[in-house]
This record gives sequence, structure tokens and C-alpha cells, in this order.
Amino acid sequence: MLKGHQSWIFESKPAILSSAAVGGPFEAEGALADDFDILHEDLWLGQDSYEKAEKTLLEHACQRAIQKSKVKKEDINFFLSGDLMNQIISSSFAARTLGIPYLGIFGACSSSMEGLSLAAQLIDSKAAKYVLASACSHNAAAEKQFRYPTDYGVQKPPTAQWTVTGAGAVLLGRHGGGPKVTSATIGKVIDMGISDPFNVGAAMAPCAVDTIEAHFRDLNIDASYYDLIATGDLGKVGHELANALFDKHGIAMPQHIFTDCGLLIYKKDQPAFSGGSGCGCSATVTYGHFLNRMRKGELKKILVVATGALMSPISFQQKESIPCVAHAVSIEM
Amino acid sequence: MLKGHQSWIFESKPAILSSAAVGGPFEAEGALADDFDILHEDLWLGQDSYEKAEKTLLEHACQRAIQKSKVKKEDINFFLSGDLMNQIISSSFAARTLGIPYLGIFGACSSSMEGLSLAAQLIDSKAAKYVLASACSHNAAAEKQFRYPTDYGVQKPPTAQWTVTGAGAVLLGRHGGGPKVTSATIGKVIDMGISDPFNVGAAMAPCAVDTIEAHFRDLNIDASYYDLIATGDLGKVGHELANALFDKHGIAMPQHIFTDCGLLIYKKDQPAFSGGSGCGCSATVTYGHFLNRMRKGELKKILVVATGALMSPISFQQKESIPCVAHAVSIEM
Repeated sequence: MLKGHQSWIFESKPAILSSAAVGGPFEAEGALADDFDILHEDLWLGQDSYEKAEKTLLEHACQRAIQKSKVKKEDINFFLSGDLMNQIISSSFAARTLGIPYLGIFGACSSSMEGLSLAAQLIDSKAAKYVLASACSHNAAAEKQFRYPTDYGVQKPPTAQWTVTGAGAVLLGRHGGGPKVTSATIGKVIDMGISDPFNVGAAMAPCAVDTIEAHFRDLNIDASYYDLIATGDLGKVGHELANALFDKHGIAMPQHIFTDCGLLIYKKDQPAFSGGSGCGCSATVTYGHFLNRMRKGELKKILVVATGALMSPISFQQKESIPCVAHAVSIEM
Repeated sequence: MLKGHQSWIFESKPAILSSAAVGGPFEAEGALADDFDILHEDLWLGQDSYEKAEKTLLEHACQRAIQKSKVKKEDINFFLSGDLMNQIISSSFAARTLGIPYLGIFGACSSSMEGLSLAAQLIDSKAAKYVLASACSHNAAAEKQFRYPTDYGVQKPPTAQWTVTGAGAVLLGRHGGGPKVTSATIGKVIDMGISDPFNVGAAMAPCAVDTIEAHFRDLNIDASYYDLIATGDLGKVGHELANALFDKHGIAMPQHIFTDCGLLIYKKDQPAFSGGSGCGCSATVTYGHFLNRMRKGELKKILVVATGALMSPISFQQKESIPCVAHAVSIEM
């Protein structure tokens, strides 16, 4: 149900019946390794291309989420998924494998929460009994498509981010004992004129702040409502900028609850530059780490604000700046 | 509200408050030229790249649809849009211009009806007061990305299709006097093993048939319920194949009501090969031609089944076959 201008309140509280996170070798060495259901030692996942490896990663996450629930695949009404590949082929090819009616989405790295928002909306409005939502990215597939072949060893600036090799999936239903999706805010596209694809954290910070402010306004709450507010993949640079913007706008954002998936996923000694990024970043951290913490009772109310840089290599080459969007979803026990 | 396994019934009958179709020079010479709101003589639309021309096309369609309604842009809750460009940049850049909270979607040429389905679902479930949905494609931008630079003059087989330069947009609200969106069926991904990107009509025909059969099954109706059933862009080859599949499955599909947007949009003497294609094909034919015919009283109940080939140049190069999907939306006066 619409709340304010751009938010939804899910009165029936759609239940997260199960979730799964799958990662690659760099994630296996990361700070949240224990929260992954499957960690692959082989970046290729036994496939002959990185694109096929990414699709396999996503299939594993979806299959594991279904296995962990008591729901039969045939009873799932809709599959919503998005990724960074051109024409979201990872999602579409996984949809072929799954055989579930499919709605492809794209919001770059915000795809994880775009999918969860819409999935919860479909359950809440009785447009579905069960919905599977997922998002994924693969470091080498993303590097190959957006930047240079990794073999070139092109040096990166410290503002760059490390695309997560990971897939996260979540199965939603009308009733269940675990965490519930309670509201969502759909973001506007914001473009502050930044055109450097090695500094998307800075490009995305203003849209994260805009969506969080819209969420507070629409729901008439403030940051104190939540135990944790996590942006998707702003990284160090974007996180600092978001804090500065909250200060400037006079919005209280307590530091002990405000974090970023891209800051959490890797250890400090891993060469991840400004932090993790990619659709798989917020998807695995949310559907693995955060939901596990909620199930353990460590967190009661969280807001995940996945951020996306809506650029393409072509738009960059044509000297366009980077439009960004962020979608926020609140999950409560 | 869910009906059957994969369909929605919109009990509140979301109203199409306004719609707009914008085309290029080839469409201006086509069979449905009179149904376009704007026809551009210049394939570049005054821009310095085809990608920017496609974005401009989409902005024109959205702005015209808003102008034709009595709704203020600021009152529109959500903008749903998709296109064929990598990372759907046409939609995302138009979303930046519009400033409306944005949900990016991707279903290749099925994006038009994916957007309309979700838009109607949001209105019907009171998750929005006003939703703008759109889709677009640009012949030269698509050729450049998916095939060869047009300047090469590469010869095409007769099974090839002509990507429409066009954008269609529709504004939905809760109440209004015009055509209403009454139901939708979300398709499964079907892949019959065809891998020839110059024969997507044949690749897409089975998914169109599967979605239409699911629609009839979920709603407990048959083809006689409709005055017109139009697939998105199967073209000649795909249309014949769809007919053969209905025969094989024992589904009655009267020839006088069964058509295809890709067969309607161009004149017989235009060199469009098997017919029109692209997200802009079903979007302009539906939001221009079909809705105009409904407003004139010539059609009362139509089912538009937009079909999408979910391939990318990379998946083709890696010898993957073409997964396809189709989404059906019924519109009634």
C-alpha cells in the first residue's frame, strides 16, 4: 500500500521463508565467509566463461534458497532477478533453468532491493503466494565488460571498488516465522555530474541519502527506528560522503547503526580498494549476513538501501555523467 | 490479485489516462503513421549519437503522455521502463530527466507489457495513484549494439526483423473514462534451442503460445473472449509458427483476431524483412494504434502478448541458444 509519495507499507508483513548467499574465492577469504551457504574455490565454477560462471552462481543461490524452504519450485509464482551483465543474461538464463514465470529487473547494484521491494509488494497485495528474488555479480565478468581484461593488470585508483563474485536469493511467502519485509522506498534517479566509473561510491552517495530521507519522510520515522541502516556499496569514499550529506541536511544518522555492505564484506587487508560493489554485494550481505544476525536475535529492525550506478560503457564513452538510484527495504523480526 | 499460477486479475480496473507513441522516419512511412503522436524525420533526433537519440525518443513519449493527461508530473509515483540498450541506459537517462521514482525493467521486447503488467498491479493494489510505463528501441542503436555498424551494409536473411525506432508510454491511474487494464499473465522463459539472432521470431513463437495458453488456463477463457490478440514482434516467420503450435496443441485461435505488432507497423513494400521488432514495436503499436482503435469503439477487448528474446551479443558468441519470454496484458473498454 502506498505511503507518502514513493514508499510502500506491507501490512501483511511478507515472510522471508528462506535465503541463500553464494560466493567466490575472494569472498571465501572475506570478513563474512561464515555467512555464505556455498563458497566456490574456482572463480570459473567449472564453466568455460565468466558469464556462465555468474549464471551458475545465481542458479546455486536460487536452488539453495528453494531447498532451504519447504516450498516446491512448482509452487513459486514469480522469479524476479537482475544483474550487471548486458541484457541481464545471468538472470534470464537462470530463469530458463528454473522455469518460474520471470520478471527481469535492472537497477545496477540496486537490483537486489528493487527485486525484494517488488517481491514483497506482490506477496502483500495477494498477487503471489511465493516469490523468489535474486541478484548477482561476478568480479571477472564485470571487469571484462565494464573495464579492461583482468589480464592487463590495469592499475586502479583508491576510489575504485571490487565487484563481488556472489549471488543472493530470497524466497518470500505470506506466512512464516522468520524475518518479515515491512516497507520499501523506491528511489529517484539522481545525477550529481560525476562521470568517473572508478568513483561510483561518490556518484551514488547522494541517491542513497535522498532515498533514506524520502523513507523517513514517507513513513514519518527517523534513524532511531532502526538497529542498522546499511547502504549497498558506497564503499569508504561514498560512505564518508553520505555522512557529510546527512550532516549538511540536518538528518541525524547515528554512526553505530550506519554501515555499508561494501565496507563489511572484505577484510581490511584484502585489496578491495574503497570496498565491495556489484549486485552481489548487497544481495549476499543482506541475504546471508544480515538475515543470519536477525535470526540469531542480534538485530530486530534493519533498513537496506541498495545503490546502483546506472551507467554503461557506452554512456561513459559518450561522456555522460552517471545517473544513480537507490531503493530501501526494511526487514523486521 | 493472483489468478491461477501466473496471472493477475485487476479488480479495480486501472485506467489508461493517456498514452503516446513516438516514431522515426521509417515509421513515418509505415502503415500506422497516423497513430503516432510525434514522427521524427531525423533518425538522430538532433543528437550526436543514436543512443542519445533513443533516450530523446523515450523522453518525448513520456512527456507527451503526461501532457495529454491532467496529471502533474510531480504526482506520478513511479516510472517503469525498459529498453534494449546495455544497462537499459535509455530508460535510466529518461528517468533522470523525469525525476519520478524509477523501477528499471528488462524483458527485451517483452519489456512493454512487463511494464504495463507491473504498473497495473501497483495501481490495482493501491501501491500507487499514478504510474508511467514505457519502452523504446532505436533501429540504428540496436543494429550497432547487437549486429554490425549499419554502414557496412551487411546483407540479412529474410527471417531477420527490422528494429522499430519508436517509444511508447502510458499513464495509469485509479479512475478514468478510457481503456482499462483488466488482467495480465507473466510468462516463463522458454528456449527451444534456436541460436540464430536473425531468426528471433521463430525463437519467440513458442513462448508467446505458452503465455497465451497460460492466460486462457488461469482465467478460464478462450480466444473468443477477445476482439484482437496481438503478439509483440514475431513477424511473418514467428506468426506462422505460432499458428502451427496452436494447431498442434488443439487451441482454437481464429485468424481474424490473431495478429502481430511487427506485421502491422510497416507497409508491405517497406524492406522490413519478416517484420518489425524491438521494445518500441509493441509499445508504439499498442499505445498508439490499438488504444486509438479502442477509443474509436472499433475494439472492445484486446490481449497484447509482447515477446522478448533474452539474448546478448556475448551469449550468442558463446554459442548459447536464445531464451525467450512473453507477457500478456488484456485491455478492455
